[in-house]
Amino acid sequence: MPDMTQQSEPVQPVDGTVVPRYAGFSTFARLPRIGDVPTYDVAVVGIPFDSGVSYRPGARFGPAHVRQCSRVLRPSHPQTAAMPFATQPVVDAGDIACTPFDITKAMEQVEEQAYALIADGARIITIGGDHTIAYPLLRAHNRIHGPVALVHFDAHLDTWDTYFDAPLTHGTPFRRAAEEGLFVSGHSAHVGIRGALYSPDDLSSDAELGFTVVHCREFQTRTVADVVAQLQQTIGDRPLYVSIDIDVLDPAHAPGTGTPEIGGLTSRELLEVVRGFDGLNLVGADIVEVAPAYDHAELTGIAAAFLAYEFLALFGRARSRT
Amino acid sequence: MPDMTQQSEPVQPVDGTVVPRYAGFSTFARLPRIGDVPTYDVAVVGIPFDSGVSYRPGARFGPAHVRQCSRVLRPSHPQTAAMPFATQPVVDAGDIACTPFDITKAMEQVEEQAYALIADGARIITIGGDHTIAYPLLRAHNRIHGPVALVHFDAHLDTWDTYFDAPLTHGTPFRRAAEEGLFVSGHSAHVGIRGALYSPDDLSSDAELGFTVVHCREFQTRTVADVVAQLQQTIGDRPLYVSIDIDVLDPAHAPGTGTPEIGGLTSRELLEVVRGFDGLNLVGADIVEVAPAYDHAELTGIAAAFLAYEFLALFGRARSRT
Amino acid sequence: MPDMTQQSEPVQPVDGTVVPRYAGFSTFARLPRIGDVPTYDVAVVGIPFDSGVSYRPGARFGPAHVRQCSRVLRPSHPQTAAMPFATQPVVDAGDIACTPFDITKAMEQVEEQAYALIADGARIITIGGDHTIAYPLLRAHNRIHGPVALVHFDAHLDTWDTYFDAPLTHGTPFRRAAEEGLFVSGHSAHVGIRGALYSPDDLSSDAELGFTVVHCREFQTRTVADVVAQLQQTIGDRPLYVSIDIDVLDPAHAPGTGTPEIGGLTSRELLEVVRGFDGLNLVGADIVEVAPAYDHAELTGIAAAFLAYEFLALFGRARSRT
Amino acid sequence: MPDMTQQSEPVQPVDGTVVPRYAGFSTFARLPRIGDVPTYDVAVVGIPFDSGVSYRPGARFGPAHVRQCSRVLRPSHPQTAAMPFATQPVVDAGDIACTPFDITKAMEQVEEQAYALIADGARIITIGGDHTIAYPLLRAHNRIHGPVALVHFDAHLDTWDTYFDAPLTHGTPFRRAAEEGLFVSGHSAHVGIRGALYSPDDLSSDAELGFTVVHCREFQTRTVADVVAQLQQTIGDRPLYVSIDIDVLDPAHAPGTGTPEIGGLTSRELLEVVRGFDGLNLVGADIVEVAPAYDHAELTGIAAAFLAYEFLALFGRARSRT
Amino acid sequence: MPDMTQQSEPVQPVDGTVVPRYAGFSTFARLPRIGDVPTYDVAVVGIPFDSGVSYRPGARFGPAHVRQCSRVLRPSHPQTAAMPFATQPVVDAGDIACTPFDITKAMEQVEEQAYALIADGARIITIGGDHTIAYPLLRAHNRIHGPVALVHFDAHLDTWDTYFDAPLTHGTPFRRAAEEGLFVSGHSAHVGIRGALYSPDDLSSDAELGFTVVHCREFQTRTVADVVAQLQQTIGDRPLYVSIDIDVLDPAHAPGTGTPEIGGLTSRELLEVVRGFDGLNLVGADIVEVAPAYDHAELTGIAAAFLAYEFLALFGRARSRT
Amino acid sequence: MPDMTQQSEPVQPVDGTVVPRYAGFSTFARLPRIGDVPTYDVAVVGIPFDSGVSYRPGARFGPAHVRQCSRVLRPSHPQTAAMPFATQPVVDAGDIACTPFDITKAMEQVEEQAYALIADGARIITIGGDHTIAYPLLRAHNRIHGPVALVHFDAHLDTWDTYFDAPLTHGTPFRRAAEEGLFVSGHSAHVGIRGALYSPDDLSSDAELGFTVVHCREFQTRTVADVVAQLQQTIGDRPLYVSIDIDVLDPAHAPGTGTPEIGGLTSRELLEVVRGFDGLNLVGADIVEVAPAYDHAELTGIAAAFLAYEFLALFGRARSRT
Repeated sequence: MPDMTQQSEPVQPVDGTVVPRYAGFSTFARLPRIGDVPTYDVAVVGIPFDSGVSYRPGARFGPAHVRQCSRVLRPSHPQTAAMPFATQPVVDAGDIACTPFDITKAMEQVEEQAYALIADGARIITIGGDHTIAYPLLRAHNRIHGPVALVHFDAHLDTWDTYFDAPLTHGTPFRRAAEEGLFVSGHSAHVGIRGALYSPDDLSSDAELGFTVVHCREFQTRTVADVVAQLQQTIGDRPLYVSIDIDVLDPAHAPGTGTPEIGGLTSRELLEVVRGFDGLNLVGADIVEVAPAYDHAELTGIAAAFLAYEFLALFGRARSRT
Repeated sequence: MPDMTQQSEPVQPVDGTVVPRYAGFSTFARLPRIGDVPTYDVAVVGIPFDSGVSYRPGARFGPAHVRQCSRVLRPSHPQTAAMPFATQPVVDAGDIACTPFDITKAMEQVEEQAYALIADGARIITIGGDHTIAYPLLRAHNRIHGPVALVHFDAHLDTWDTYFDAPLTHGTPFRRAAEEGLFVSGHSAHVGIRGALYSPDDLSSDAELGFTVVHCREFQTRTVADVVAQLQQTIGDRPLYVSIDIDVLDPAHAPGTGTPEIGGLTSRELLEVVRGFDGLNLVGADIVEVAPAYDHAELTGIAAAFLAYEFLALFGRARSRT
Repeated sequence: MPDMTQQSEPVQPVDGTVVPRYAGFSTFARLPRIGDVPTYDVAVVGIPFDSGVSYRPGARFGPAHVRQCSRVLRPSHPQTAAMPFATQPVVDAGDIACTPFDITKAMEQVEEQAYALIADGARIITIGGDHTIAYPLLRAHNRIHGPVALVHFDAHLDTWDTYFDAPLTHGTPFRRAAEEGLFVSGHSAHVGIRGALYSPDDLSSDAELGFTVVHCREFQTRTVADVVAQLQQTIGDRPLYVSIDIDVLDPAHAPGTGTPEIGGLTSRELLEVVRGFDGLNLVGADIVEVAPAYDHAELTGIAAAFLAYEFLALFGRARSRT
Repeated sequence: MPDMTQQSEPVQPVDGTVVPRYAGFSTFARLPRIGDVPTYDVAVVGIPFDSGVSYRPGARFGPAHVRQCSRVLRPSHPQTAAMPFATQPVVDAGDIACTPFDITKAMEQVEEQAYALIADGARIITIGGDHTIAYPLLRAHNRIHGPVALVHFDAHLDTWDTYFDAPLTHGTPFRRAAEEGLFVSGHSAHVGIRGALYSPDDLSSDAELGFTVVHCREFQTRTVADVVAQLQQTIGDRPLYVSIDIDVLDPAHAPGTGTPEIGGLTSRELLEVVRGFDGLNLVGADIVEVAPAYDHAELTGIAAAFLAYEFLALFGRARSRT
Repeated sequence: MPDMTQQSEPVQPVDGTVVPRYAGFSTFARLPRIGDVPTYDVAVVGIPFDSGVSYRPGARFGPAHVRQCSRVLRPSHPQTAAMPFATQPVVDAGDIACTPFDITKAMEQVEEQAYALIADGARIITIGGDHTIAYPLLRAHNRIHGPVALVHFDAHLDTWDTYFDAPLTHGTPFRRAAEEGLFVSGHSAHVGIRGALYSPDDLSSDAELGFTVVHCREFQTRTVADVVAQLQQTIGDRPLYVSIDIDVLDPAHAPGTGTPEIGGLTSRELLEVVRGFDGLNLVGADIVEVAPAYDHAELTGIAAAFLAYEFLALFGRARSRT
Repeated sequence: MPDMTQQSEPVQPVDGTVVPRYAGFSTFARLPRIGDVPTYDVAVVGIPFDSGVSYRPGARFGPAHVRQCSRVLRPSHPQTAAMPFATQPVVDAGDIACTPFDITKAMEQVEEQAYALIADGARIITIGGDHTIAYPLLRAHNRIHGPVALVHFDAHLDTWDTYFDAPLTHGTPFRRAAEEGLFVSGHSAHVGIRGALYSPDDLSSDAELGFTVVHCREFQTRTVADVVAQLQQTIGDRPLYVSIDIDVLDPAHAPGTGTPEIGGLTSRELLEVVRGFDGLNLVGADIVEVAPAYDHAELTGIAAAFLAYEFLALFGRARSRT
């Protein structure tokens, strides 16, 4: 856990112009490990858990895969000139250890270990793992920040009630979260929704939880700037938590996931929307459902790594402004 | 063959919230088999035939692959709230058996078996198989509906005359169909055309058959709504048959096909166009040229399964209106 | 459930010389489904469950994959001239439905549904699914046959006590079975053992359960006939249950599995050993841990399909002798 | 066609120590093309035909794949010190052009073009394409050499009568050949047979054609030297034609093929048997059923390329002895 | 080298309606080899070199892969009716032989052999190989055309100074070129730039070299026509050299490359931009960084082949106008 | 560098029964990193270098891949009951950083960094990288141990003189080593040799360097015990260095490598030979030429990880004896 009173220079990732990027240990972006430096502002942490999936499993290998894919990252953001590793201490906090055999227990383990990482004021960017983990992550953040404005990128609503009588699965985290008031109704949104539903009531039932929905097909007719403006207005200055199910991307851009749906976002659109959160009060983020066994040429893993990088850049920009 | 005078409740697919979607027999969308229920309005039928291909073979495994991929489908359409399985009896009619060693004979087998499925008024959605089968399918439909307005999604015109002296191949079905007047000249269209041609005359030669062409590059400058409007006007209230060569999609969205061409449609665009046929008089549809050996992570198979689902939804909406 | 008093002619699989083997519904070997015929002597049943795996998941897709791969099977055994589908009624019983989210509950579902299939005297050959299911399968068989001589092909002992405090995982089924006396100590064997262990005590701890071990490295110096003779002597005329973890094969022969270990059996060796059980009192068998996402060109799935076929041939030979 | 009266120095393949082996045009072993040199003793020729396959197609891409894979070959044989490219002029004769849409016509095209290559006394090594082509190849060789001693490596007998009423398929070439007396009954052999049969009569029906069978399982108990001795005795000094279906190898060694069967030969065994033909009167050879779409890391293609190299070495050794 | 005074009829590629496109030797588009015809206007040449890559290697297999993928090309351009092979003699010049073990020496080999191909006035379209080769290619073209207007499609600037002290790598060719004045400052452009940078100075440092930058994200808001207009104005009537790093495409469209970056161009956009160069004074082009080991279903190789075809069409159109 | 005077308890790898094996940082076998513990007896170190390869590159990703694959290792050896991590302190020393752009310089970097790791008496097991690195590794070991008995497992001799005038490539390390007397002539061996040669002189030229050759084909007729006995006699009690090119395995067992040759060793044979070195004076070992881009389902990486584990076990057994 970080000692936030201690000031420390950010330790840069291993320099790719000195040590080739394919060399060295696979930490996220080749950053220092959490124990190697005295403190951190932001930690990237993995949660290798996929016992909540209803279709193609394998997201337990997501954190290791994304770390390996993150070797391609470089220090300076191409659009904003942000230097995410230089303006704030960033570490790789490793993986949260949780059992694959008991979902309830695993979710407790996730909440406690995630909370420990942020308890002293640091931020985390989480690499899943399946979407079940969003629920304990929201609980952990709630202990610090109270209810958040939640922006949820996904092909699916993930607000179903139960699967096979199980309340905690990757299709239900946001219903559980709603029941506990973990996000601010009326100021939260689903973005990229498009998959077929179990029932026509799914959408109305979801709407009762207070979500704005930006359907994926809207990207065919609206500009990204327009979507961003709507989201900014929805969120306002509330603490913002962003949860990205990688399947919000079209399967062409992210084949390595469990329940792909055609007609998705391009990675260019998704990048633009995320960059549009600059200036908002981001407090945490996760990127989930990367299933490496279905990936090809690291497409999906690289997408997840770049998205994490965007969140790091947002945190860095926020800090630079303060 | 269905007894259309007998009313029966649609038998729903196996419920994915009760039996996991990866479990159970691989029928399309886990629907009942044709023999398991007394009647049907719509049958999904496979034609595992690829002896007409000129380049990468393997579409004979298309029906089995698409069935496996269709496990991800759910009951309720995300945009229209249609319930395709609930508003009409739908079955999986299995595969049409035809010889791989004699194209002419195989096409006779296809026509007869396809006709038997629709002779009493039901509809079929066909999963190929290579595009040669569009010719006997059009013949079968012609026996019920007369000449159809044909909308043909493809990177290629498929109106060449012969290959290696063979009149029946996957590059020639629509010339054969034109010779027999199976579609209505002046009210039919190719959509998504983009591949290089054998001769500059190919386009003019094709135009003589009465096709409107919506080139793929037009999607770069026109809206989908504009294309849909043009197609609706072209088709009018004529009986509509839609034939989708999966290679109309960009190879990024559909790698598993025989003759990929870059610069194609996104799956989001294709979905929007197909959804734009709501309200037209659809009488039949096929989705062909899925070659699983070249697929990755089921991308192409899932795309085909979702397109078949869209046709089911169109049929269901039509029935709901009557 | 079969009515064993009713005699019925075996219904042959769809004939591959009439309907191409790549055509038609994917039942095991294109056999009739359990509801399609009045009775059966042997049922092939899938258990799409993989929530007990400790490393690479995905065996939930095993049954569907093995069914698709089993299309290559033919009616007559190449060595014994057995006609497994002609001498006894065989069906595909589909998949046992069980929850992915609660291992204990799922194992109860497995036991009950498996028992229902064999309660009237029929045999089952089970396609997994991960190895956890061997435990409820042994329980179900125990209700009919009492304790069995167990021959367990595997790279691993699978007699560990718990993982992460969980008593039911794919590494522990045979310890649970031992605790309940489901197999006959002193007349059971592990074959193909080779993986590194958690502790040097693993082997001695396992030996206390009464297993003979044929280490995989013994195949380097002993003949298969010698191994078979040893196993025949170990088993005697006791009711025999065979459980094959596909990872007993070398990863070259079975890449599509969860915890591969190098230095394994060739498929030729494994076939020879299984064929050596001819004449023994086989009462049941399973083939588990096929994880299709890691398979290539259907190697692993085809191996599993052929092994199931060998068990069918053993059952058929036994019946022919009576 | 070669002018055999003209003496010419063999033109060596492009030197891999001067031009990297991954560079330059893809001819077999980077040999000169048939038109580039005045004459040849041996030609490697492709037959990209797969319209005779009953299961997984794609062998039409076999010749191009094997050429690409053959870049790894080197000038000197590791065991015999033979220099196959130095002791005899060898060329790549390109591909025989034949229609994919008419099997009968294609087989006539194969026979005529193959005959043209050997009419003046040269030898050919053929890269398939599916096994149907063995029939016209045997016809072409028969016009020069009369009936041959045929050694056929395969998992399958390929002496079925018809498939779907078609007399020419990849499962029937040797029955057609038997009907025309193209090989010497009593002095021909199948090696590696192991697949399940359509009927128990298959073996006896095959035996009537005069084949000795070396079943694959015999390799488990006999030495390769013993098998070689048996084959040498069977063949004697008759003109020898060798036909290798790559599926004689275990799928672990040759995944890229149409109808894989487990329990096959290792590539080391197959190499040893082929090398055992040294000193026999080899007149021709083919290697068929390489289906690249199912290959991985070029395993199957490399195996085929090395087998062709062994035949070149046998031809070279024979010439060195004369 | 061509004798430009000699007039010759263009030799067409092998006709795909006579010889199947999967048959015959793998030259680019099945064109004649450079030695097979008396002269040429345009040569397609490979440079199998990848010793300059900083991340995923394998582009040394690019030329062979793209040749194999180019079998799908057809004679007539779908948009312009250009007949690139009919209006000008085109050949496949094979591969430039260069050492993988000494970058400096290899670049000299590239320059000399490339210059030899164009010394008499012909054009070349180069298939890489990694981007290092752009530097010697620009040197070769400079000897004929003087400084060129350079349009560089890439996710990356490739104007870094050194990597690991090496001045010649795939990240530095355009800095070396700038130092030698090989392109016209102020009239050259990068298109598609999007990757993260080593330093915020990268962009300003690059700007000093005189490049206009069209960032990839601009394609989200600008029309292609607008970008084309800007580029046409930038280039004017100067001799134009185009260098396409295939990673300018999104990884969904071009997975088979060394340093993929998400958020890229679609192949439809890239085709449109390249087609927009019609009428400009194109003098040479290269397509680099195709790494086949990471490709799937030939997506990347087909994209490269089609891009080369577009350049052939531009050359053909230019010739038709003169 | 270790302080060998300081005694420390070995730090065990992360316990797979407490933290799932797919979780946590990817160090070899999840061991501590070199900086995390005070000392070590054995270090596993990677050398991500592949600029010396003559065919398929990509071994630069070997170390990261083998680390990821090594997650499957467990504490106790299945045959000897050795506890390699418990009887000696073992660490992961990370990767040696060396330039990809200058082979000579890179080899100096390798030698110096490798020497630093062993200078105080520790041992290293190296994961390549291509085989060029064996030369500087032998130099580093020579500085401690003097000339070693070298056992070299490989399909190829790797004693060629130069490639493209380059003296340091992956085909030449043992000629360079011979020139410097780094191994003991007459007491060194190649094992597994089988690939075709550039010249018949290759073998005699190699023999002059003092190597015994155990050809791969000998494993077809000799027992492993016999080969082991021969090697033990060759080596005697001299310091032993073992270098394993993973391509000594058959491509079925190790597809992920640069220059595969059919007819290779099985992994079971190779394990047996390596285990046969128990009792010899092993001083160092490397495992090279793992090229992940050609691997499937981690087969090759897992093989390399297990081989490294065998060397750790040999070191552990030696220490236990002292």
